[in-house]
Amino acid sequence: MPEVSPKQAVGIAGFSGYSGAELARLLENHPCVQPVLLEHRTDSGADPQPLNQSRRLQRVQCTPEAVRGEGLSLVFLATAAEVSLNLAPQMLASGAKVVDLSGAFRLRTAERFERWYKERHAQPELLAEAAYGLPEFCRQSIPRARLISNPGCFPTAANLAIRPLIEADAVERAAGIVCDAKSGVSGAGRKPSLKTSFCEVQENLSAYAVLEHRHVPEILLVSGLQESELSFTTQLLPVDRGILETIYFRSKRLRSVGELLEIYANRYASEPFVRVYPAGTLPDLRRVNRTNFCDIGAVFDSESGRGVIVATIDNLVKGAAGQAIQNMNLALGLPETAGLL
Amino acid sequence: MPEVSPKQAVGIAGFSGYSGAELARLLENHPCVQPVLLEHRTDSGADPQPLNQSRRLQRVQCTPEAVRGEGLSLVFLATAAEVSLNLAPQMLASGAKVVDLSGAFRLRTAERFERWYKERHAQPELLAEAAYGLPEFCRQSIPRARLISNPGCFPTAANLAIRPLIEADAVERAAGIVCDAKSGVSGAGRKPSLKTSFCEVQENLSAYAVLEHRHVPEILLVSGLQESELSFTTQLLPVDRGILETIYFRSKRLRSVGELLEIYANRYASEPFVRVYPAGTLPDLRRVNRTNFCDIGAVFDSESGRGVIVATIDNLVKGAAGQAIQNMNLALGLPETAGLL
Amino acid sequence: MPEVSPKQAVGIAGFSGYSGAELARLLENHPCVQPVLLEHRTDSGADPQPLNQSRRLQRVQCTPEAVRGEGLSLVFLATAAEVSLNLAPQMLASGAKVVDLSGAFRLRTAERFERWYKERHAQPELLAEAAYGLPEFCRQSIPRARLISNPGCFPTAANLAIRPLIEADAVERAAGIVCDAKSGVSGAGRKPSLKTSFCEVQENLSAYAVLEHRHVPEILLVSGLQESELSFTTQLLPVDRGILETIYFRSKRLRSVGELLEIYANRYASEPFVRVYPAGTLPDLRRVNRTNFCDIGAVFDSESGRGVIVATIDNLVKGAAGQAIQNMNLALGLPETAGLL
Amino acid sequence: MPEVSPKQAVGIAGFSGYSGAELARLLENHPCVQPVLLEHRTDSGADPQPLNQSRRLQRVQCTPEAVRGEGLSLVFLATAAEVSLNLAPQMLASGAKVVDLSGAFRLRTAERFERWYKERHAQPELLAEAAYGLPEFCRQSIPRARLISNPGCFPTAANLAIRPLIEADAVERAAGIVCDAKSGVSGAGRKPSLKTSFCEVQENLSAYAVLEHRHVPEILLVSGLQESELSFTTQLLPVDRGILETIYFRSKRLRSVGELLEIYANRYASEPFVRVYPAGTLPDLRRVNRTNFCDIGAVFDSESGRGVIVATIDNLVKGAAGQAIQNMNLALGLPETAGLL
Repeated sequence: MPEVSPKQAVGIAGFSGYSGAELARLLENHPCVQPVLLEHRTDSGADPQPLNQSRRLQRVQCTPEAVRGEGLSLVFLATAAEVSLNLAPQMLASGAKVVDLSGAFRLRTAERFERWYKERHAQPELLAEAAYGLPEFCRQSIPRARLISNPGCFPTAANLAIRPLIEADAVERAAGIVCDAKSGVSGAGRKPSLKTSFCEVQENLSAYAVLEHRHVPEILLVSGLQESELSFTTQLLPVDRGILETIYFRSKRLRSVGELLEIYANRYASEPFVRVYPAGTLPDLRRVNRTNFCDIGAVFDSESGRGVIVATIDNLVKGAAGQAIQNMNLALGLPETAGLL
Repeated sequence: MPEVSPKQAVGIAGFSGYSGAELARLLENHPCVQPVLLEHRTDSGADPQPLNQSRRLQRVQCTPEAVRGEGLSLVFLATAAEVSLNLAPQMLASGAKVVDLSGAFRLRTAERFERWYKERHAQPELLAEAAYGLPEFCRQSIPRARLISNPGCFPTAANLAIRPLIEADAVERAAGIVCDAKSGVSGAGRKPSLKTSFCEVQENLSAYAVLEHRHVPEILLVSGLQESELSFTTQLLPVDRGILETIYFRSKRLRSVGELLEIYANRYASEPFVRVYPAGTLPDLRRVNRTNFCDIGAVFDSESGRGVIVATIDNLVKGAAGQAIQNMNLALGLPETAGLL
Repeated sequence: MPEVSPKQAVGIAGFSGYSGAELARLLENHPCVQPVLLEHRTDSGADPQPLNQSRRLQRVQCTPEAVRGEGLSLVFLATAAEVSLNLAPQMLASGAKVVDLSGAFRLRTAERFERWYKERHAQPELLAEAAYGLPEFCRQSIPRARLISNPGCFPTAANLAIRPLIEADAVERAAGIVCDAKSGVSGAGRKPSLKTSFCEVQENLSAYAVLEHRHVPEILLVSGLQESELSFTTQLLPVDRGILETIYFRSKRLRSVGELLEIYANRYASEPFVRVYPAGTLPDLRRVNRTNFCDIGAVFDSESGRGVIVATIDNLVKGAAGQAIQNMNLALGLPETAGLL
Repeated sequence: MPEVSPKQAVGIAGFSGYSGAELARLLENHPCVQPVLLEHRTDSGADPQPLNQSRRLQRVQCTPEAVRGEGLSLVFLATAAEVSLNLAPQMLASGAKVVDLSGAFRLRTAERFERWYKERHAQPELLAEAAYGLPEFCRQSIPRARLISNPGCFPTAANLAIRPLIEADAVERAAGIVCDAKSGVSGAGRKPSLKTSFCEVQENLSAYAVLEHRHVPEILLVSGLQESELSFTTQLLPVDRGILETIYFRSKRLRSVGELLEIYANRYASEPFVRVYPAGTLPDLRRVNRTNFCDIGAVFDSESGRGVIVATIDNLVKGAAGQAIQNMNLALGLPETAGLL
């Protein structure tokens, strides 16, 4: 009889938020790990989990002692940046690896963090140490890292769409690249606010953080673009989940949409979570809903050299909890797609 | 005692569609005209008007005889392009002016129509004769015209946002202009189709007609841009009404967002239906809902010369029925804002 | 030349909430009154009015002095019950009539208020004095009152649907009446909360306050039903505006749907804001959207005596601001429908 | 080494509809069966499956030969009633068991079918033979049947909520039972129609088939109620998926909500797919979304004997595809919950 390995325990801090609840939902069906909820004083009273008579997840206090006591291999921080800055060193000190879903450790240097987040960084050494968890471009560094910084939702789609074009030198950079992003409301988190109230969002669309979104520096870091080259705008859609980014560029080199799509097909040939659409078809939000896929399609006008890329993800899955699990799989030496297909 | 002028009668063909029903709704409160519904065999059985015990609009057959018999000053064609091509000459022959809401008479030459609508134009003389009904830029020609072609919904917002920039020579045209448009579903008309079914649209966003929408040539004609300079994409929002267009450009001349906004403030200083937003604020769909306004806001990064314009309209009002009434007011010598504020 | 009467000034306290903003929107087009916004410390910073270059409403402090100074004939309190309890005596002391949109003065006795609102009533004399502002059943007392209590949104539809049945003795009361109510989210007000957050409401439907909603006693008072006879449930719809109530009863006396509908047709024959639907048709939310109508339709099975009534209103119009204006019109001796058709 | 049984193949006819697509989605992760798509001339051109580079389901013609050739153990008919009436005997003749998701075989007698479906039944013998597939009440007959008729979506929730009350003799039947049902749009199927168009459903709620829905006889058959005792109404919600039913009854026997809930807790103690909520909490659509659960909660007023039950399901899962798989599991001798948790 084959030996069945016992499941490893992993912790979720911030499980009452949308990303944390999605982590719990996805991990319940993971073949190799067992989630434990880490209770923290910032949790709201509400229990985001469905009532389920059969299985209730274990809960412990979110303390170094409990993490050590439960033998957690890894802790997800689905918490606000300021909470993550406080919890990350504690959890690492307990011997667990950490995947942080906030913006706390994404920008590599304290200067960059200060410019975009408008405050000093309390843990500059951890910031320098953290691996950026976009597996398609950072697969080597993730398994070796103690602290993995899960990418922002917008940069995930943007970088998967833009970086192959830059690598292939397909873009006329002087003309700039436009990334027009649209996001569902769950990306704003679960804390009630007027901006995310039903009556303000329904039958509406509004632009915000035009040219100055905190996610811009992540796109620049991974794609290699200069700030002056990228026009990035976000818009709030009346949907729960999903991000669609429409990316515009100009090219003097590309001759056809086929050539353009081949760049993606080659780059992502062995990637399990990037799907490239054939010419004449484009992704939409529904097809990535509740999946860890990033879907990419393209249109190209060969006469004028105008190119348009459409990239979609579910902001709570590939844009948050799903990618965090993908990073956990890499960090713990599990199959990268475990629990995600 | 002041003499109260009796109301003029005007006809609505296609009143069972969304634009036609909106025309009827708006005209019921117009101080100077009285709407008459023109029944045509293409009307669906359904009556789009609310049940109202007090007032029922008069209905007559949509024939030249009825138009003459009822003494209609003007007829709105809220019909499909092929129906408008057939009805327009008949209605004109009856002595009525015509405001056509379809794409039949917007492109001035039969060649251009053939390229974008993929069919021959059956009335090339009328096409040449028609006035383009964007009052903010064509106010002189509208009162003199027998046939007024009401602009497309996307070009209305796009031209109000783009043409002042071109007139002011503010745009670095070599870098191109991007117009990323998002529209509510009513813009697709009332005929049932899978694409506009609730379950396909809800919780979704999809791009279509990327770089090849029929509305592109209208934007080129009014704005003066070349096709190769404009990247225009449309996306279907899960909302009933509303268009938001995000327009990206680069400028070497502009020095501040104030200077950029001044272009609009000056150009539209005496326009009743264009509202320019102060720096730091941007329009959204809710604020133009059920109004004839086009709202315009801007962001500008003076260091890099990146500019972003956000323009919004209600696609059934300023994008269709409202603008058609604005054109009717001009055509019949009534106050331009009558029935629209 | 006919003398044009100058417009009377009326005040709106609580104009930044949804009902207050709707009052401002509707009153801007009222032929006889001019709205003035009354600023109160409970207003949120946000300005709910659309930016409009042409007209900005006047604003003054919400004090007795300002009300007297501006010569306001009437003040609307679109405020929370506790604020209304405080403001109502002040405004009345300034000589203005008051239409209160909160629940503060609806229940006639302090005992009843205490039971359903779970707190003592601070103004029992005003409570006893207030007229209940459901014009279809209280038209005589409204013009004579200083203080008019605008009905709750659910009771407005419920009482217009149920009371004629009780008056006609058409209901087998021993079998009870069920009123299953569904409401749009704006009925919950503009204050952010998790329950009205987009991601909690979208793609959801939830029941709340089952059998114990604060609006129950208003239904009992007007309809004449006993509490044990009425099962009243509310459910939160993923829509902005609108209430639909499905009312179930049994009858041994009625013989046909025609007879049932005649009860309503007779009762509301001269009512401008109640529309009775012909047999075979039923109202829905869209047809009352942004109107002051209450629409009523019915189904009846003559074999078994089962009856179903469907009644709809826009909760912000006939359920709040529109009915408040109807009450103002009666209170100030203006035509009842002024500004509402 | 343990022997891994090879997966059995099962067919899906009507895979391009919403129920069929949901079947394909759920069966892709089933541990014991492998789905095969059965192409039929009634399929629309559109492919409802997500593009997925890894797995494409096998497709064969929907013929007896193909069913036999592929060795399909069971065929799902996710087709319209008239197509099912034609396909069911063919598939049975090929040796496959059949789970039919249409209304074709639910009503046991041709007379009853004729009354509610307004047409003659073409296969009265199969109608008499078919097992009704509500496992919670028909678990014995399902494994023995060749043809299983999957229940309607509304009756599934209604019967799970009502029958335990009738069995426990808790209802004062003379007062009648009200079942006020609300459904998402996917329940109406994928064929485009004006009634399910986005612009007609969004911001709307409408009642239909009041007292005469085709699902009424299924509720009567299982619950044991007489038609005159049940008032059943359906309403179309602006959501994609989900049914919520609010059920009203009167009881002279019950003394508390605890006693009421105990009826359900006892009846469903060992049911894997029915969850009973504790007093003070009620189910909503989100908690059953994409699950095979039926959630049940209750409110009871002991003084007056008024009871309210709230029951929810996902109409495409427990109301269609999920329950069909539950039936397949029973029919093929697999664990009842396989592929459904």
